[in-house]
Amino acid sequence: MSEQVAIPDTVLIFDTTLRDGEQSPGATLNVEEKLEIARQLSRLGVDICEAGFPIASPGDFDAVRRIAEEVGPLVEGRKNGQPMVIAGLARANQEDISRAYEAVKVAPRHRIHTFLATSDIHLKHKLRIDREECVDQVIKAVSYARALCDDIEFSPEDAGRSDPDFLVQVLGEAIKAGATTLNIPDTVGYTTPDEFGRLIEYLIKHTPGADQVVWSVHCHNDLGLATANTLAGIKAGARQAEVTLNGIGERAGNTALEEVVMALTTRSQNFNLQTNIDTSQIARTSHMVSTYTGMIIQPNKAIVGANAFAHEAGIHQDGMLKNHLTYEIMRPETVGLNTSKLVLGKHSGRHAFRVHLREMGYDNMDDAEVSAAFKRFKRIADKKKVVTDADIEAIIADEIYQPPVIWQLDHIQVSCGDHSIPTASVVMIGPDGVTYQDAALGSGPVDAVYQAINRIVGVTNRLTEFTINAVTEGLDAVAEATIRIQPVEGAEFIMNPQTNQPIYKTFSGHGASTDIVVASARAYLSALNKMLAERDNLAAQMQRAEHTKAQA
Amino acid sequence: MSEQVAIPDTVLIFDTTLRDGEQSPGATLNVEEKLEIARQLSRLGVDICEAGFPIASPGDFDAVRRIAEEVGPLVEGRKNGQPMVIAGLARANQEDISRAYEAVKVAPRHRIHTFLATSDIHLKHKLRIDREECVDQVIKAVSYARALCDDIEFSPEDAGRSDPDFLVQVLGEAIKAGATTLNIPDTVGYTTPDEFGRLIEYLIKHTPGADQVVWSVHCHNDLGLATANTLAGIKAGARQAEVTLNGIGERAGNTALEEVVMALTTRSQNFNLQTNIDTSQIARTSHMVSTYTGMIIQPNKAIVGANAFAHEAGIHQDGMLKNHLTYEIMRPETVGLNTSKLVLGKHSGRHAFRVHLREMGYDNMDDAEVSAAFKRFKRIADKKKVVTDADIEAIIADEIYQPPVIWQLDHIQVSCGDHSIPTASVVMIGPDGVTYQDAALGSGPVDAVYQAINRIVGVTNRLTEFTINAVTEGLDAVAEATIRIQPVEGAEFIMNPQTNQPIYKTFSGHGASTDIVVASARAYLSALNKMLAERDNLAAQMQRAEHTKAQA
Repeated sequence: MSEQVAIPDTVLIFDTTLRDGEQSPGATLNVEEKLEIARQLSRLGVDICEAGFPIASPGDFDAVRRIAEEVGPLVEGRKNGQPMVIAGLARANQEDISRAYEAVKVAPRHRIHTFLATSDIHLKHKLRIDREECVDQVIKAVSYARALCDDIEFSPEDAGRSDPDFLVQVLGEAIKAGATTLNIPDTVGYTTPDEFGRLIEYLIKHTPGADQVVWSVHCHNDLGLATANTLAGIKAGARQAEVTLNGIGERAGNTALEEVVMALTTRSQNFNLQTNIDTSQIARTSHMVSTYTGMIIQPNKAIVGANAFAHEAGIHQDGMLKNHLTYEIMRPETVGLNTSKLVLGKHSGRHAFRVHLREMGYDNMDDAEVSAAFKRFKRIADKKKVVTDADIEAIIADEIYQPPVIWQLDHIQVSCGDHSIPTASVVMIGPDGVTYQDAALGSGPVDAVYQAINRIVGVTNRLTEFTINAVTEGLDAVAEATIRIQPVEGAEFIMNPQTNQPIYKTFSGHGASTDIVVASARAYLSALNKMLAERDNLAAQMQRAEHTKAQA
Repeated sequence: MSEQVAIPDTVLIFDTTLRDGEQSPGATLNVEEKLEIARQLSRLGVDICEAGFPIASPGDFDAVRRIAEEVGPLVEGRKNGQPMVIAGLARANQEDISRAYEAVKVAPRHRIHTFLATSDIHLKHKLRIDREECVDQVIKAVSYARALCDDIEFSPEDAGRSDPDFLVQVLGEAIKAGATTLNIPDTVGYTTPDEFGRLIEYLIKHTPGADQVVWSVHCHNDLGLATANTLAGIKAGARQAEVTLNGIGERAGNTALEEVVMALTTRSQNFNLQTNIDTSQIARTSHMVSTYTGMIIQPNKAIVGANAFAHEAGIHQDGMLKNHLTYEIMRPETVGLNTSKLVLGKHSGRHAFRVHLREMGYDNMDDAEVSAAFKRFKRIADKKKVVTDADIEAIIADEIYQPPVIWQLDHIQVSCGDHSIPTASVVMIGPDGVTYQDAALGSGPVDAVYQAINRIVGVTNRLTEFTINAVTEGLDAVAEATIRIQPVEGAEFIMNPQTNQPIYKTFSGHGASTDIVVASARAYLSALNKMLAERDNLAAQMQRAEHTKAQA
């Protein structure tokens, strides 16, 4: 048995925000953002951090490797004093597994997570193999992985729609081949809690060697049942839950970490189980993930929505004043709300700012980064009486973790109104270091800025989403703009070097400012720079591929 | 037995978007918005529409009454050919019940829904009565209601935390007194599906006369389990589900209509139950509720989130191309996505516009309203190549369903940029018909507009939320701004005439324009007018109260 097998009363929390969560359309994170989130996951007390899918791209490999190296050893603030297990995902083949192992092996505790679909619909339509070939491939992959590393997780993809007896066979072989964790995913969010609980119970009862491994569940929220399915799996004997912050993930997303953890915590007498999570870090982590991925949280989201602890109706307010237990089953402090208030104002110095950043957990910023953030902080403190932690997080997200700068914004000037033609003038510095300027009209001030930027940069794209949120309360609040764009047909769209097909990938950017027009412009340029960097990157891959072909 | 007792294989959908949903902080709707949503709920196929809490205020009473009168008789597009039952909420006392009956009685099918808490914590801390007094009050209230109306629903509030045997006693008495539907709420979102299913099973098994009534479930999402709890209740025998669109409601909200309906539909072989919902109206209704309440939907929201049907990861896209069933358990068309595309452009005439509005369901607009909407449509069509249904919905929400206009915006002019001081000049028409103008600086263009408006109106308030979303794709999209404000301490804050305590109520406003600054200004003024109308209304109530006191 490997070291992370749970003592009976603990549910291990396997966070896949950086892998399955990052697969949300437009949620793409750069490596600095991933590292920052991984550090916060460690502080939150996550047991296993799935850091990425190393074979997917060189960028993904580097991100997983850096997380393994820089976050893998951290133990500060962790309940059980042990660092996180850093996991890398791999399809069930040697190339994927080797690559995953290379990426995670530097972490003191590391895991290879390999998977293969077992439902007939996936075997037939996606993999085009039969059941026998499927079993062979699992045995080969798990044995190969186990020869590299002691901690091996295997997932039968689309288990929710697989034949339970075939699953018993595949999983039994996976255990014999050396798997230490077996994870049962409901890949398409299809099952109900009854069904899923029964499936887990059946598998644990019938799989030979079931007691030698940790059983895990991985649910999706297509029918709004992810949390309930996960809890049903846990009741049936699973001792690892695969989750993401805010439930982000493809389609309707994954199981939300905060919901599972708070259900186990609030209803501990029902479940009689614990986790290693420090719940007071939940609000902070949730906000960071929302800011960096640009995935907004609806006000009525359980645990982490803005209204989750708000009471409006007169009847309820009356009850709350008499005894908060009448309408409240948890205290906001438990998840870390209302604990950190204003600390800094316009007279705060650089040292105080740095000390405060460290208290907030930004302990790895270099002098240049602190200086850049401090400059922005002073500009905001000049305009705004009270600068809160949320403002500072927005500044850091905007200032520090920008994509490679290709085009730079130097100056924006806009005039608009309900009876005038929105007009923008923009000055930019190009990748060649030359200063460009132009003006344009638009349907509104933001559109005018975009049109002016487009005249200079000359790359057409399609805006698929545009959101602005006030980070803090008050009319003078810092606003955070999130923009998603996609390349469009034409000279500049992005080609996949392997298939020579266009990639309609979404690129997101965020920008923060007290001026929503400036915040939007920053967000747009950030998304545009990400798109241009990807295009250059793919073009270089294509050249290398052609070069190799020419040499062969 | 009353007429809406379900045939065995149908689950009745009781929508409380307009009652429990509207209790979300800031989700306040005006009467025109409520009527429009009620009409759409009828088209959606909702069986029972809880239209409000008539005793709460004269405005609430009027809204319920108008819904009963104008929407109550509608049958168009409804599967079973029957109109909706219009329900009004009432606490368990004669005054509330009479008022609810007055409001709903004009609907061809109407219901009184009365409730009383039964958990010891509520009896002791909120109601300050003992169990015996509780039973007496239920018998009196239900008998009184039944004498007025044949269709009576009773809810034991906080049933999830009540003693099951006491519940059996209370519910048995409610049936004897004439209740036709018994609704079991998990008021604080505390239970798990196992527990809640067992509770419903226990109550149906042990309550004398259980087979004479429809059993109903009403769940909250504090632990992310509302949908699962509702389905567990249905499995245990409940045949009515109380839900809201998008799961809006106090704190983490209520059970989402779309999740329960799509779980029953997608997994029909598991549940073997049907609803009267026309699922192809789900997307449309969801969008309308989100727009009118200003409660945004997160992209990873099940069924109705922007990403619910989106596939980003390469592996999944590959699978999807081979066979969409590999990763998709429902088709977007089923919930009404991708069915309505562009129809109108800048050359469309007034007649075509009117016909299209009617097709969209806006069949009750008068000439002045159509003209106002058409004028806005032409202005947008001038700036934007393609005007979609979503754009039109945003225009109508902004133009037609405004709160009582107290202050009016006449002209805005703004200049801003990253190196200039944001400056706004504003011209407004006051409640006295006089034109006022002023200018102000701000931390950004929106703040500058607010400061200028505040200089003129002179009412201080606190902004608690500010969001801007693009309604449609494209850089020239119509943007929708949502703003929530609260009164602050000072001369103008709002006092409760009964308690003479300040009311920290939230007021929301929305505004739409291709110009985000203009959209924000409209949203702010809309929220401000709502706040001022409430203040005037309360002041009038106070005067009346004092007048009555002086006469006595």
